[in-house]
This record gives sequence, structure tokens and C-alpha cells, in this order.
Amino acid sequence: MKKIFQLLSCLFFMQISVFAQEKIQHIEPLNWWVGMKNPNLQLLVHRKNIADFSPKINYKGVSIKKVNKVENPNYLFIDLLIAPETQAGEVKIIFENNKKETFTHHYSLLKRQNKSADRIGFNSSDVLYMITPDRFANGNPQNDNVANFKDSLNRKGLTGRHGGDIEGIIQHLDYIQNLGMTALWINPLVENNQPKTSYHGYAITNFSKIDARFGTNDDYVRLSKEAKKHGIKLVMDMVLNHCGSEHWWMKDFPTKDWINFQVSPKTIYSTHRRESLHDPYAAEYDITSHSDGWFDSTMPDLNQRNPFMANYLIQNSIWWVEYADLGGIRMDTWPYPDKNFMSVWSKRMEQEYPNFNIVGEEWSLNPSIVAAWQKGKVNKNGYVSYLRTLMDFPVNAALIEALNTDEKVWNQGFTKLYQTVANDFVYANPNDLMIFPDNHDMSRFFTQLHEDYSKFKNGMAFLLTTRGIPQIYYGTEILMTNPKSDEHGEIRGDMPGGWADDSKNVFTEMGMSKAEIEAKNFVSTLLKWRKNTPVIHSGKLKHFAPANGFYVQFRYNDKQKIMVILNKNKESKTLEMGKFKEILKDNFIAKDILSNQTFEVKGSLNVPPNNPLILEITEK
Amino acid sequence: MKKIFQLLSCLFFMQISVFAQEKIQHIEPLNWWVGMKNPNLQLLVHRKNIADFSPKINYKGVSIKKVNKVENPNYLFIDLLIAPETQAGEVKIIFENNKKETFTHHYSLLKRQNKSADRIGFNSSDVLYMITPDRFANGNPQNDNVANFKDSLNRKGLTGRHGGDIEGIIQHLDYIQNLGMTALWINPLVENNQPKTSYHGYAITNFSKIDARFGTNDDYVRLSKEAKKHGIKLVMDMVLNHCGSEHWWMKDFPTKDWINFQVSPKTIYSTHRRESLHDPYAAEYDITSHSDGWFDSTMPDLNQRNPFMANYLIQNSIWWVEYADLGGIRMDTWPYPDKNFMSVWSKRMEQEYPNFNIVGEEWSLNPSIVAAWQKGKVNKNGYVSYLRTLMDFPVNAALIEALNTDEKVWNQGFTKLYQTVANDFVYANPNDLMIFPDNHDMSRFFTQLHEDYSKFKNGMAFLLTTRGIPQIYYGTEILMTNPKSDEHGEIRGDMPGGWADDSKNVFTEMGMSKAEIEAKNFVSTLLKWRKNTPVIHSGKLKHFAPANGFYVQFRYNDKQKIMVILNKNKESKTLEMGKFKEILKDNFIAKDILSNQTFEVKGSLNVPPNNPLILEITEK
Repeated sequence: MKKIFQLLSCLFFMQISVFAQEKIQHIEPLNWWVGMKNPNLQLLVHRKNIADFSPKINYKGVSIKKVNKVENPNYLFIDLLIAPETQAGEVKIIFENNKKETFTHHYSLLKRQNKSADRIGFNSSDVLYMITPDRFANGNPQNDNVANFKDSLNRKGLTGRHGGDIEGIIQHLDYIQNLGMTALWINPLVENNQPKTSYHGYAITNFSKIDARFGTNDDYVRLSKEAKKHGIKLVMDMVLNHCGSEHWWMKDFPTKDWINFQVSPKTIYSTHRRESLHDPYAAEYDITSHSDGWFDSTMPDLNQRNPFMANYLIQNSIWWVEYADLGGIRMDTWPYPDKNFMSVWSKRMEQEYPNFNIVGEEWSLNPSIVAAWQKGKVNKNGYVSYLRTLMDFPVNAALIEALNTDEKVWNQGFTKLYQTVANDFVYANPNDLMIFPDNHDMSRFFTQLHEDYSKFKNGMAFLLTTRGIPQIYYGTEILMTNPKSDEHGEIRGDMPGGWADDSKNVFTEMGMSKAEIEAKNFVSTLLKWRKNTPVIHSGKLKHFAPANGFYVQFRYNDKQKIMVILNKNKESKTLEMGKFKEILKDNFIAKDILSNQTFEVKGSLNVPPNNPLILEITEK
Repeated sequence: MKKIFQLLSCLFFMQISVFAQEKIQHIEPLNWWVGMKNPNLQLLVHRKNIADFSPKINYKGVSIKKVNKVENPNYLFIDLLIAPETQAGEVKIIFENNKKETFTHHYSLLKRQNKSADRIGFNSSDVLYMITPDRFANGNPQNDNVANFKDSLNRKGLTGRHGGDIEGIIQHLDYIQNLGMTALWINPLVENNQPKTSYHGYAITNFSKIDARFGTNDDYVRLSKEAKKHGIKLVMDMVLNHCGSEHWWMKDFPTKDWINFQVSPKTIYSTHRRESLHDPYAAEYDITSHSDGWFDSTMPDLNQRNPFMANYLIQNSIWWVEYADLGGIRMDTWPYPDKNFMSVWSKRMEQEYPNFNIVGEEWSLNPSIVAAWQKGKVNKNGYVSYLRTLMDFPVNAALIEALNTDEKVWNQGFTKLYQTVANDFVYANPNDLMIFPDNHDMSRFFTQLHEDYSKFKNGMAFLLTTRGIPQIYYGTEILMTNPKSDEHGEIRGDMPGGWADDSKNVFTEMGMSKAEIEAKNFVSTLLKWRKNTPVIHSGKLKHFAPANGFYVQFRYNDKQKIMVILNKNKESKTLEMGKFKEILKDNFIAKDILSNQTFEVKGSLNVPPNNPLILEITEK
């Protein structure tokens, strides 16, 4: 008998070695950490007939709470409990079926970085530089084309891949830092192995892997580390609403309800009627059509009401924060996933990282809708969000309209902007909103301003001194335009100098026009000053209704007082100070931070034409 | 009831004789009532050197709490306390000075009408007919010109007086009732003894007296009684923000701060920057400029922060409710008086009349600003309002834009309206809002719709079936237009048939076009049906995002279900019912309330072109 057992044991070990070679197709999260606030972890395991196997773990502090089978026998969802005192190490997960066939997976539990839970997310002391990575800089031409990736290099195509990559960003961190930026939002870098238009990054085919044409997961971690050395927080662009149609799970769905309208005679597209989520009279038909419809034929809609999908997405987000040491997340299409899930997701993120920050994209010009998603807003329908930052599309639209319209027409010109800022009473925390001149989905700021540099300066002076967290799209600092059309490919132009053979180079200033260099210096002066001027980050705001071509605002606290004069006058004009007596003394010393000149103001100020003034005030 | 009015009439003449003997120029309120909830009454007494006199009262239940002197010795403000059990009667107020000179004023304390405190104000079961009285009907040509009134008859002048009066309205109450109206808002009828443009009524020179060219106080009471007999609530248009520049107190100000900018080198006009009242960053400069600036050179701004002014205005409002048995108040320029006063005023009105209603005019297209003034809204700045109804200018603007724009353009056409209604989550009580096609300050609805009758029908079908309290301006039911301009005088055209020599007559249909009669019948059919269809008054609302030229809404409760199909299609089009399965069964019986036809619907409905459909649904 004993011999027989020995023989069996031998056989058993032989079997292990045999099975060990048979790879699990997917296990996610790829690893985890000890010491997380939430002790639960749900592993998605994908392997042919994995449902025939039972997992076992013998690791101090780690226990299997439940093994979940789903319709598709190729998946298991394993619920683990990781006790607080658990030590980092390799966890052996031994899978065995009823034929006594077994195999082992080694799963890493890592030690968290020091103070990982306390990480500070981007906030109003920051300015984010935003990059479309395919169009910024090609740092590594070796990865321009990669085997098994269908969408290959085509720099001439508007929707083609141009070759920009992570290495290109790393190489230009000095430029970004020298501009005065303190955070970096890059469009998605994770795998988009789609047959075409893959460069934009929003059709994700693997949520845990950097696209090989941008680099590797290690490159991304390297970028994060290098950025940190440059005083720059890395903000990851994430998508929870949809995946790419070539995502691996599209060929082997875990469940029948993994994707919304997964089985349907024809694709149902989102109606984009986002209002229905807040509408007290909404038809279920409209809510479902909006939330569950596909964003695009190449972007299947994920069903976050499936609890395994929900866990998958939450854990994936946390995984990237820990793995890449993130300083923030930008969440795509915030109102498109199931709204209850978004409440849970944002709460889970906050529980793990109470000082972190996430910015959600709600492209609505209705401030009440934007406000409804912000943390702290008391919604009539009881909806609770934990999202602190939203993109302030209403202020963006108002700014552009304000700059482009006539000061002499009632409710036009700067008044448009004044009214929109005055409407901040609808927000729980307006200083947490993200403000911007443009982004990857909009015509370039300078194009929208009809290439008027005076408007550009007024606009930038506003954005970099008002409440909120500014974000600037790459190239906007050098007056990049899209004169031909507002097609996405036109908007997302190549950054000059990002490619070795470029005749013009932003980074060296080779071939740059005087106007471009002037604009860059203007923006950079403002950014560097803002970085070191805390009253702009968190001071109070007071503004005066626009009049006579001026829109005057103050940022102030106990220590500092800044006067911002936006000015559309085409000739020098006197601004009487009496109007501001509730905040300004009659006479004061002003330092113009743009010209770096200091002068005394007595009763009135002669404002030069077309230029904004930003004055540091010293009162006697 | 009858006796009270007789007494009142007698009193009026007695007072006149007493006034003449005792030379009291003004004592207001003109009388008061016993049994009011608030036992306090503050009399404004205006007489040469009245401050030299002390008043005494010997009347059971009535005591003088305090006699207030002000800068001007020609005024006393006497604080009375009227105990709950006090009986109605004549209160002798004996004035005596230190030279022992005395005189007596007989002040009436009347008995209140039965259930006066419980009066029901206009609400969503009502539809208000709105009249500019000078332009509606000249019932009494004897009062066209009145001695001592400078602005005399000039029917050809756009800003001149045309002769319409209270008698004209009384004579046409049958017409108004037959249209299906249940309430009547008339522009101010109180005295406007201004040298010109007095017809509009908003430059009040006596807050307690009907303008003699419109009739007498008695006529106004008679109108109220007759209207009540016709099932019509009388809604008085009031102004608390300003008076007319010819108001009697402008020649003898009670205090130095009776009027804002009372003594000023030049008139300060309101900046109309109403946003400043809600703006978290507002400058005091803007709040003051808006609230305290004069509305117009002929409209001095009342200082409601003066407590005597505040009491005067509150008591004047209550006086009119009791005196004329009002069914509501329309308050002009709601955000222009001191906002804290408006909170107090609205609270006092609610305390006296808990079931009454008041509609405030906030001409803002920003729903968040409109919402901030509504009772029940929790404002971030802590402001509390007791105003239930506001004019829904945002829905008005959206309706017109929706009707005039293309269904095929993204976010245009009916979608504009759908989005605005969906935004109702910002309101505490959207069903209390007043909705309207136009009013006395706007181009006529039919003009704004480019005289397109299909749009008119869709617009009216919407307004008379959606949430809220509809209001229709006189003449809009017969497609009145202002083709020449949008000057106020053009908008406020004479109602045909209101003058004896008119060649066209709405009331008899003489000379009316077929189109005008059809429109009148269309509106009347809708109004009469609405009046008897409670589900429209208080049922739930559900609407579906517009598609294919249709905007479909339901009003429903446990007993009734109404389907409203707004329709812009220029050809017959099939509407599939499957989309509505969450609220409709596959097959049902529909009664079209406009054509009065009943038919069965199975799965789909063929909708005739250009017409809205309003269907009463019966399901098996």
C-alpha cells in the first residue's frame, strides 16, 4: 500500500509539472498587495474548463471565502480574504479537479509603497498638462509597429498611429516641468488592439496591460517615477463604460450579461440622453437606452450591474493606483456606466485613498447636471456621489463665448463668463472643478478664438487665476490650431519636435515663430507664478460684474491679495478704483506679474490695451 | 358679506369728510380687520406736524403699543395691538398736542369674510387669463379722461392710454369663463398718476387706490365678486420694488432712507445683475447696484430695509387680499426688492393665508436661479423663501426654441424642451411653476412662432398638459401678433371688440377670420377639457426623449392616463407603441380629446401630420 501511495505521489507531482506548463489564460488582478483597507479580493481566473477545478490556498492570513462559478465553465471568480497582518509573498493557489488533476498558480502579494494610502491626488494647487500620447513624441521608434497589432504606423493618416509613446513623454518631462506643470493626464495607454483608429486609446482590449506600441507596463512605472522626480503627478485616463470590440473576453464571455445588449439582433447605440439620469420624469426606456447602449460599434458597453464585472473594474482601478503610483485618475464618460455602480466605485476609491482625486467627464453645459455628480451635493433624488472633481464644461463654453462676443451687447462678452461663475452656488465644491481652454475632443482654443492673441491671453489669465484646477492640452501653449476642420485627428496634431525629422521643434525652439515662443513664455510665466502663489490655490474669490470692457476679479486671503483685470479694450483705458473699495484701499502698490513691474496706484489705473493685468497688491 | 361692503362704502365717504375736517392727509392701511392671525398693526399717519400730537385709543381689545416718530414731523407710525377677541367697529383715535389741541380720527375695524384666512389661491388646477386692462375693453367711456390726471386718452399712441377699464373686464367675464379660464391676472389697476406711459400700471402713485381711469376701489371689489360668480379667481398684480415718481410721498419723505438713493447727485439705475444675489463671489457693490438702483427714472426704488416701509408694504398686500377677496397675487420684479424683506413678506403672507398663492417674476433663463426663490428649496447660502410659484421663463424660452428649430439637429427641436423639463430636479415643486406662451413683456407667441399654426397647436397642447400652472395672455387665443416691432405698445394690442366702434369683435366673432375662430375654439376645447381632468392638475408626468419628430408625454394617476403626442411631422407617420410598454399595454382604447373621436390602438398609431394628439387612454 505504502509503495502504491508513493507511486501515486510521484505521479501527482508529475502531473503538477505537466499542468504547470499549461498556462492560465488570464488571472486578474495580476497581483495584489497586503495591508489594503479592504481585505477582500476577487480573482478572475480564465482557463479552459477551470470550473471543473477547486482552488486551495495554504498561506498564513489568506483564505478562500467563496468560489463562484458562472455560466461559462472557462471562468472562476475566487473570493479571497486577506487578513490585516498578512505578510507579502508568493501565494500558491493549487487547483484540483475531481479527476485529481492539479496545477498551481503563483500569485504575488506585494508590500505597499510607504504611505500609499495617504497619497495626495491632484488638486487646485496643480495644473495638469494633457497629452494624446500617439501625437506627442516618438521616443522609441522600435515600437512603432509591433507584431500581432493590426493597426500599424501611418503618420500621414488623421486616424492612424503616428508613433508617439511613453518614452517620448519621459524624454520631455523637463519641458513639461519647465512650463510650470505639476500633473500629467495622458489619454489611455492601455492596450487597444483594434484594427483601426486605435491611437486614441478608448477602445481597450486589455485593462491591465500597456499597449506595446506605447511601451510596457514597466515603462509606465518608469514614467511615473520620472514624473515624480520632476514634481509631476501622473493621472491615468480610465474607462469603465466600455471596452474595445477586440477585447479578449469578447470571444469567451464569462456570463450572458457581461456586456449590455451582448446578444442582440442589432447593436443598440447609446442615445446619449444623459439628462434622463437626473430627470424626475424619466422613462426607464431612456435611461436604459442611454446607459446600456453601446458607445460605438467598436466599444461594447460593459454591464457594471454584474457583480463580477463590478469587482473586476474596481480592483483594476486600485491595481493601477498601487502599481503605477498614480496621482490621480481621469474617468472617461462618467455618466455612461450604471450610475449606482459609479457611486460604489467612487466610494471604494475614496475608502482606499481618502486624499486621492479623480476627475470625471460629464460633457454637459448644464451646471446643475455637472453639480449632481459632485461629492457633497445633496441631490433631490437621493443619489450620492464620491467624485470630487468634474470637468467644468459650462465654464469652458462660457469663457469662449465671453471672449468672442461683444462687450456692448446685453448679457454678452465677459458678462457671459461672470454669470457662469456666479452660478457656482449650485456646486458643493466649485474649487474642485477642472477648468480648461480645450481638450482632445474640442477645436483648439486658439482656433476657437479666431487666432486672436489678445483673447488667448485674457482666457489664460482667467483660467490660471480663477477657482478650480486648470488643465491645458499639449500644444495649446504654443497656439496650436486646427484650421482645416474639427476632426479629432486635426485637433490632436503632432507636437512639433516630437519626431526626429521634424523641421520645427517646441522643445529646442528651433523653427518656432516669435508668436509661438511669446505665447509659450506667457503661459509659462503664469504657470510658474501660480505654482508659488497659494492664494490662487485656495484663496477666496470676489468678482465684479463686467463693465466698460473690464472684468475684475480678486483672489485673497489673510496674507495675499491678487487683482485680475481681464481687459478687452482696444485702447488704453482708465479703471477707477473706487468701485473696489470694499476690498481695496485707495492707494496701493501693485506688482504686475506678467511684466514684472511694480508701481503705485492712486485712485485709478491706466490699463494698456488688449492685455489682462494680474496684480499682486500690497497695501500700506 | 353684503353688510360689510355697505359699511365699507359708507366708511369711505365718512373718512373723506373726516379727513377734510381734520386734515389728515393719509392714514394707511385705510382700515383693518379683527381676527387676523397677526395682532399687530402699524398705522402710517401723514399730516402737517402730526409728530406734535399723541394718539389715544379707548376701544376694548385695541391698545397703542408704541408711537414712532421719524425725522419728518409730518409722520407718525402708530403700533397697535388688536387682541384676538376684539369686536369690529369704529375705533376713535384721539390726537392731542401739548397745546391741548385735539382731533379725532375714526378708524374702521371690520369683520373678516367667512373663511378668509383659508382662501385657496390659484394652483395647477387653474389656468390664468392675463389682461393689460388699458388694452382689453373700454366698458365705461366716462372715465377715459379724469380731472387731475395728466396722462389723458390717446388711443392712437403706443404708449398712450386707450381707455380700457375694470368695467370692460366685468362685461366680458362670460367670454373669459367660456374660454375655460379659472383665474384672472390683470396688470396693476392702482393709481399711476404719472405724466406719461401710465397705462402699464407699474409706476404706482397710490398703493391703496384704484386708478380713477380704470374705475374705483368699489369697482375692483365688484369685479372680484363677479369673477367669483364666474368661477374665476382674481389675482392682483403688485409691485414692492418701486413706486411712481409722482407718488405723494415723493414730495414729503417720511425718512431720509425711504427711497434708495433718495438724495443723490444723479439717479443710480439698477444694473439688473440679479445673479449677484446668489453668487458666492458677489461684490457688495453689485448687490447694492442691482437691488437699490432705480428701475427707471420714473420708478424710484423703495427701501424695504426701513422697517416702517416694510410694514407699510406687508400691510398693504394683506389689505388688498382682505378688501378685494383676492385669489392670488402676482409680484412684479421679485428679485429687485431687498431679498431678506421678500423672505419676510412672503412668510407673513403665508402666515395669514396658508392656502393662498403668489407668483413671482424672476425673468431668468437659468432654472437654478428661478429655483432658488421657490419655497422648499434648500439653498446653500441659507436663504429661505416662502414663494410657491415662479414664472417659468426657462420653459417658455425652451418651448419657443423647440418649436422653431429643426428636429434633425442634435439637441435641437423638441429635445430642447425635453431637456428643460428634465431639469426639473432643481426645483422643490415644479408643479407650482407658472408656464406661459407669452406675456405683456414679450413678443406675441404667434409672432415668435412665425405665425405657424401647427407650432401654435403643439405649443398650446404642451402648456395645457404638462406640469405647472398655465397662464395665457389676452388675445393669444386668437393668434394676436405684433408684426411691426416688439415694442411694448405693439405687444399690448387692443382686444378687438373691446371698443364700441371696433370693426372686429372677439366677443361676438364679428369680423373674425376663420383661423382666429379656429384657434380660439382649439384653445377653448383644451382649456375646458383641462378644467375637468384632474390628472393634468396633479397627476404624475413621464416623458420620452423626442425621436422622429414626436415628443411623447404621459400624465397619469391611479384613475386616469393621458398620452400627449407633440408632433412636427409634415406627413402622416406611424408611432410604434412598443417603446412605451413601461406605461402602456399593447392594445388600448384612445379618445382624442381634440377631435372627440374614439378608436382602438393595436401596437402602433398612425399620427396625422402637423397636429398634436391628446389621448385619454382606456386599457382593458
